[in-house]
Amino acid sequence: MSQKLVVIGGVAAGMSAAARAKRFNPGLEVTVFERSGYVSYSACGLPFYIKGDVTDRASLIARTPERFAADGIQVCLKHEAVAIDPAGHTVTVRDLATNALHDVAYDRLILAAGAQATRPNVPGANLPGVFSLRTVEDADAIKTWITIHKPRHAVVVGAGYVGIELAEAICFNGVDVTVIEAQNQVLPALDADLAVALQLRLESLGVHIQLGTTLKSFIGADLVGDVVARVLSRLGEASSADASLHGDTLRVRGDTLRVREVVTDRGSLPADLVLLGGGARPAVDLARVAGIALGATGAVAVDAEQRTNVPDIWAAGAVGETYHRLLGKPIYFPLARAATLQGRVAGVNAAGGSARFPGTLGTSVVKAFGLTVAMTGLTVRQATAAGFDVGQTTVTSTSRAGFMPGSEHIQTRLVFENGSGRLLGAQMVGGDEVAKRLDVVAAALQAGWSAADLAEADLTYTPPVAPLWDGALSAATLAARQAGGHTRVAAPGR
Amino acid sequence: MSQKLVVIGGVAAGMSAAARAKRFNPGLEVTVFERSGYVSYSACGLPFYIKGDVTDRASLIARTPERFAADGIQVCLKHEAVAIDPAGHTVTVRDLATNALHDVAYDRLILAAGAQATRPNVPGANLPGVFSLRTVEDADAIKTWITIHKPRHAVVVGAGYVGIELAEAICFNGVDVTVIEAQNQVLPALDADLAVALQLRLESLGVHIQLGTTLKSFIGADLVGDVVARVLSRLGEASSADASLHGDTLRVRGDTLRVREVVTDRGSLPADLVLLGGGARPAVDLARVAGIALGATGAVAVDAEQRTNVPDIWAAGAVGETYHRLLGKPIYFPLARAATLQGRVAGVNAAGGSARFPGTLGTSVVKAFGLTVAMTGLTVRQATAAGFDVGQTTVTSTSRAGFMPGSEHIQTRLVFENGSGRLLGAQMVGGDEVAKRLDVVAAALQAGWSAADLAEADLTYTPPVAPLWDGALSAATLAARQAGGHTRVAAPGR
Repeated sequence: MSQKLVVIGGVAAGMSAAARAKRFNPGLEVTVFERSGYVSYSACGLPFYIKGDVTDRASLIARTPERFAADGIQVCLKHEAVAIDPAGHTVTVRDLATNALHDVAYDRLILAAGAQATRPNVPGANLPGVFSLRTVEDADAIKTWITIHKPRHAVVVGAGYVGIELAEAICFNGVDVTVIEAQNQVLPALDADLAVALQLRLESLGVHIQLGTTLKSFIGADLVGDVVARVLSRLGEASSADASLHGDTLRVRGDTLRVREVVTDRGSLPADLVLLGGGARPAVDLARVAGIALGATGAVAVDAEQRTNVPDIWAAGAVGETYHRLLGKPIYFPLARAATLQGRVAGVNAAGGSARFPGTLGTSVVKAFGLTVAMTGLTVRQATAAGFDVGQTTVTSTSRAGFMPGSEHIQTRLVFENGSGRLLGAQMVGGDEVAKRLDVVAAALQAGWSAADLAEADLTYTPPVAPLWDGALSAATLAARQAGGHTRVAAPGR
Repeated sequence: MSQKLVVIGGVAAGMSAAARAKRFNPGLEVTVFERSGYVSYSACGLPFYIKGDVTDRASLIARTPERFAADGIQVCLKHEAVAIDPAGHTVTVRDLATNALHDVAYDRLILAAGAQATRPNVPGANLPGVFSLRTVEDADAIKTWITIHKPRHAVVVGAGYVGIELAEAICFNGVDVTVIEAQNQVLPALDADLAVALQLRLESLGVHIQLGTTLKSFIGADLVGDVVARVLSRLGEASSADASLHGDTLRVRGDTLRVREVVTDRGSLPADLVLLGGGARPAVDLARVAGIALGATGAVAVDAEQRTNVPDIWAAGAVGETYHRLLGKPIYFPLARAATLQGRVAGVNAAGGSARFPGTLGTSVVKAFGLTVAMTGLTVRQATAAGFDVGQTTVTSTSRAGFMPGSEHIQTRLVFENGSGRLLGAQMVGGDEVAKRLDVVAAALQAGWSAADLAEADLTYTPPVAPLWDGALSAATLAARQAGGHTRVAAPGR
């Protein structure tokens, strides 16, 4: 009898796991349970679907359930796993269409349930018009809201990567946008001084940014409510069973409400659309109940083979932790590239093979409002917190030879260890040309290079595509000098 | 008394050497002799100056002689070194303005005389209208020729990188262009099948390409000559002292002539402008006479410290050989990046320091006619010739996530060693997005990675700048599988 692999969750990690397991062991019976109505979709593409860059919604879906079925992988949409019984090797699944529960036997289980948006714990967080973005359905709901309600004022909560992308998407739809962020900078993952360029770009394009601002509540109202409020006011009555009067605004509980106002510690903002840009947490409830151990980050703990503490159960993607190559410990870093690799590793191992996840370098990139911001490895702040003797150097270079038309400025920061010159991280800010320029530093980090190693890399040069000393090279040359250790110009072995 | 460093040649290698030597040892007396009227110019930028992309000619010059003088480096323009006396530690220099000869004493000498264009050894190679491109003066002469003579038909000899750039530059000036190439492909450095994309692009834009075509001669004529010829013809006279009649065309020797026709083994082409795209050779005459040893390539032999066989003489840049990291032997590879690094190494060593040139990977890139073609390491042909058990894989990927607008196709070929999966080289063809995508493979080659190492690299991903599996990653994943050796997914040490 063939072995049964059950995969819980069908986005990046889950479908990579299922596909890789089936390829590794074609005799395996593979079933995927996905709570939403879609699998194998690009979650990263959703902001660009809302924006309107992506006009063909179907193109967001890499492979349909039918296509997986043709490869021998059964996909059950709108099926939510509600319990795991490790001893009995069964998963209890709810068919969301019928609400019926089924017990499904497994030999091997891969938990790839992803993350779930956390509604902020403030009053009004569930008001209509307050959205988070995880699924295709979420994106559809936001698009529909924009079409029907034609919002004039949107507030984006959180200025991380997703918040910035959502701000662009909404701004592009002609809505006035304010971004509020609890930290004192946009892109809190970045070193603060480099994040300023993006902040200025947003502000120059009319986006309002409120930093160091804490969300307090959302206030809902509707037009009917407003009218009722004015009537009540005239009558001198301040409140009723389901409504209370504040000044001349009626605050009401009920389905007909929609968000009208965002209250922060620095005042109120009008808002007929709110997008929650951050605050995803690993969907670990199922795991916790089943006795699957969580790590210090609160996500499922896994070893390098993506194995959990429970026999025959692996985890991959945003439900679990991700090992950081430079920090040498797990972090919570729910991005697509790591999820896909982890899914492959879990899939191979669950299918009886042997694979190990190498870890992440924390590489990430956002492009919005014509600016691209990318980072890999550790920021100055992270490296300092991790106990390194941190050096840093920042250079401004150009995307092409300086004498060529269309050349854009690129800021490159390298973070390194003093003395050894070992590279610890890089951040780049600039135009389109930035993203793929960072990759060479990601490779350098993976290889354990010093700044001197990077300085002598044989990178592409021709005036229309790069300066002779591309940003990474000139920053590395400077860093090698600053590091104060060896500044050799030769590779080992020669 | 301060030590004297003399540098012969003031372009990429020479000025890097001079600057680095002076910085390393500020007490050094540094003098540079440059035959042309300019130092520190971007030779790579000259085609774009001819094309018209670069409108500010001065911008091609990174640092003027005045700027070098301010840093304590004396630059003598239009001074040609004509002899080196290693025993007497003197260089004989001709002042080209006065023709006067001077003996200049040196303690240390850096030879950075570069390459010189080789006129093909065919009749008519020195006719007016036949140009090569090495110096700012050459570029000026070509621009002037175009302005004055308004050529209608240009022939570019050689379809290497420079030939292709010149074809674009001239085409952009409204001149009908034919490129002839002795090999059976454009960009002979590339694997032939990948070069086809560029050939098709050129042809689709109206550039004529004649492959497998050998240059036989250039024929000159002028309008006066034509008239004379017809007169001679009427008179029944076939030749005169300085003219001969062939059919009804007069062929004449003399200064008033200009190129009219390019004769190949496949017929004749009309041409009132000819650009020699290849055929540079190291300017080694001075070295050879002085007893400086040449290597197998015909260029000056140097060790890893850029030292020649003659005491107190270093060489750098296109006059010398370049060590290839993967081939493990010197090649002739006169590109700017290596020249600059070699110059720095020679400068540090000549100033009393210690530096080593790590070698080249042969990284190169050309962007023309909207297409970018880049390579690093070995092609299939080179790797096979070098005795490797060669595997290759070629994938077509996109520049952005497939669902994003403006996504372009990119072809990526990886060359690797079967069994070990060790990476040997990469070639990429596509739009603007190609050049900096190749850099990560150059880093992988420098680090000695296998395809499996590259497959797990943590590269940037976000839909508007890359697909989740960027070309290098999907090609590396495929290559790791094909290589047949280990296909580990983890990095060493974890």
